[in-house]
Amino acid sequence: MNTLTVELGERSYPIFIGQDLLGRPELLTRYVRGRQVMVVTNDTIAPLYLDAVRGIFRGHELAAVVLPDGEQFKNLDTLNMIFTALLENRFNRGCTLVALGGGVVGDITGFAAASYQRGVAFLQIPTTLLAQVDSSVGGKTGVNHPLGKNMIGAFHQPACVLIDTNTLDTLDDRQLAAGLAEVIKYGLIRDAAFFAWLEENIGLLNARDKQALAYAIGRSCELKAEIVAADERESGQRALLNLGHTFGHAIETGTGYGVWLHGEAVATGMLMAADLSARHGWLPEDVVRRTGALLQRAHLPTRPPDEMDAARFLELMAVDKKVVDGGLRLVLLKGLGDAVVTGDFDAGLLDQTLAAA
Amino acid sequence: MNTLTVELGERSYPIFIGQDLLGRPELLTRYVRGRQVMVVTNDTIAPLYLDAVRGIFRGHELAAVVLPDGEQFKNLDTLNMIFTALLENRFNRGCTLVALGGGVVGDITGFAAASYQRGVAFLQIPTTLLAQVDSSVGGKTGVNHPLGKNMIGAFHQPACVLIDTNTLDTLDDRQLAAGLAEVIKYGLIRDAAFFAWLEENIGLLNARDKQALAYAIGRSCELKAEIVAADERESGQRALLNLGHTFGHAIETGTGYGVWLHGEAVATGMLMAADLSARHGWLPEDVVRRTGALLQRAHLPTRPPDEMDAARFLELMAVDKKVVDGGLRLVLLKGLGDAVVTGDFDAGLLDQTLAAA
Repeated sequence: MNTLTVELGERSYPIFIGQDLLGRPELLTRYVRGRQVMVVTNDTIAPLYLDAVRGIFRGHELAAVVLPDGEQFKNLDTLNMIFTALLENRFNRGCTLVALGGGVVGDITGFAAASYQRGVAFLQIPTTLLAQVDSSVGGKTGVNHPLGKNMIGAFHQPACVLIDTNTLDTLDDRQLAAGLAEVIKYGLIRDAAFFAWLEENIGLLNARDKQALAYAIGRSCELKAEIVAADERESGQRALLNLGHTFGHAIETGTGYGVWLHGEAVATGMLMAADLSARHGWLPEDVVRRTGALLQRAHLPTRPPDEMDAARFLELMAVDKKVVDGGLRLVLLKGLGDAVVTGDFDAGLLDQTLAAA
Repeated sequence: MNTLTVELGERSYPIFIGQDLLGRPELLTRYVRGRQVMVVTNDTIAPLYLDAVRGIFRGHELAAVVLPDGEQFKNLDTLNMIFTALLENRFNRGCTLVALGGGVVGDITGFAAASYQRGVAFLQIPTTLLAQVDSSVGGKTGVNHPLGKNMIGAFHQPACVLIDTNTLDTLDDRQLAAGLAEVIKYGLIRDAAFFAWLEENIGLLNARDKQALAYAIGRSCELKAEIVAADERESGQRALLNLGHTFGHAIETGTGYGVWLHGEAVATGMLMAADLSARHGWLPEDVVRRTGALLQRAHLPTRPPDEMDAARFLELMAVDKKVVDGGLRLVLLKGLGDAVVTGDFDAGLLDQTLAAA
């Protein structure tokens, strides 16, 4: 087992990564406050892992709520299902929530924990590769609004995160690929050597080699943790984590939540960001080519859907959170492993990228 | 004008109290971040003060959202009206919300500010006496759930609070009395001399004497600010502010939100808490009598509705936030101006208080 610590002062917490960790209850139970535990999961994950997780907390006053699975249910109504379950079970402010599932379950459970009685504890058991390398670190929680993704939420850190790599055995290929998109992102924004490692090992990752996956998850969490530790509330460099996300959110919103997976949209968005960076002369063409090739080998889409023309992109990007007082800011690349947030790009070159994509 | 500062380190903020303050735009505008301002108010207050407040922010990109008035609308659906307005107007994370209205508007706007894009700034212009002496200080924000009051929310401090005592001219008598309940509370829990001042000046307050009101508001805010500064997240003495609230919330929930005003329910709840304290021998009978007399002179109810029998009280009190891991804790009085939070009370005496009330 590999243990990382996300360093956030009094809000620091550990991430445990390895095989068979659901068989080690003490990893989680020592982080439970009070005696009431509410497991939040969805109807895909519940048949697979809910019984095992119930076993972990058998010494507690335990309840569970099963949400419908899918990004399209990441909204205030589904959030309210959690509040209703907590109140029906008379859970008090000393209770602990456990998020068992992918990024949607993690984000919505974290926001429920941030908001229930103005804040209770929560633990995360991410079961998708995307959630393991993204939602595990950083404390961003929230839900979508029909007019924008992740527009409602809070910063709320978990007490611990447990990543059992066995749970990836039940993940479908498309979800695995979506997680690899975020893994590749960390190489692009911060670690050229890790990017090169991914180029060499993408075959093993596609084949779900446990050792390769554990390394990729651990390195991704480390890289994200370094960035988050330096900027918990996203006033500066944390925004680098949004490489590809402004384009990607536009794709997700434009096609309707749930049609494209988040990781798929980010993959295409990252290649668009790389393309725009190269058009400015900041990034060698060769890196754009390598990025496209790696994404394709990971079975990820590299072109937006036909319905997303340039005008639609610009319209949707205008409500993105990264628009500060009217000026669009983007995460772009000044080199492999070297991302910047900038509003200082050429609008004409952005039009070229959108037209070419 | 009187200026208080709520001391909370980097989250400290000023409260301005006086007449004609809506005529001094600079008090508010210097606290606006960015250029986008969204005024949130309700359909009672909008015809009275929205134009004046629009004038204050005429130099900004300004929008307004008018909510339906009433505690029964303090819920997630109404909260979502604010998010929709923000997104329709393409407001970014640099925007500022302005809460113009009573406690419901303040609580819901504060929670919207805490949650929109994971946190934006907000200013408060409380227009009821209750909001001026209660919601102005402390950063508690949130909405109700059908199964419990204020069960969903966040701690989020305003950038400043402006209390124009002229706004009390348009407050109806019942709302004024509800505000006086909280004013009397501060005397009971922390300041016997202020309680005595209230006994002497209750006639002036009922008659809306501006000087007496400004003194009562200022002293109430000072007393609350001292408590909040020592305990921002309500882990200890901040709970003293809940004198009468456990009984009061049960009345509000049991009768249905909006039938009893919050201050009315708290008034009755405080007298029940005083009665229970006296039954333990902690508080002289004379203080109970004085409390009841002062509340009645302030035109406040001192008995719960007939439908609230002892069994119904106990059922509703069991889901109160102040129930820590199953043991009911109450705020009781060890003397005039001396409140304690305790689980160490006699359940039989509680039954007597509920039966006698």
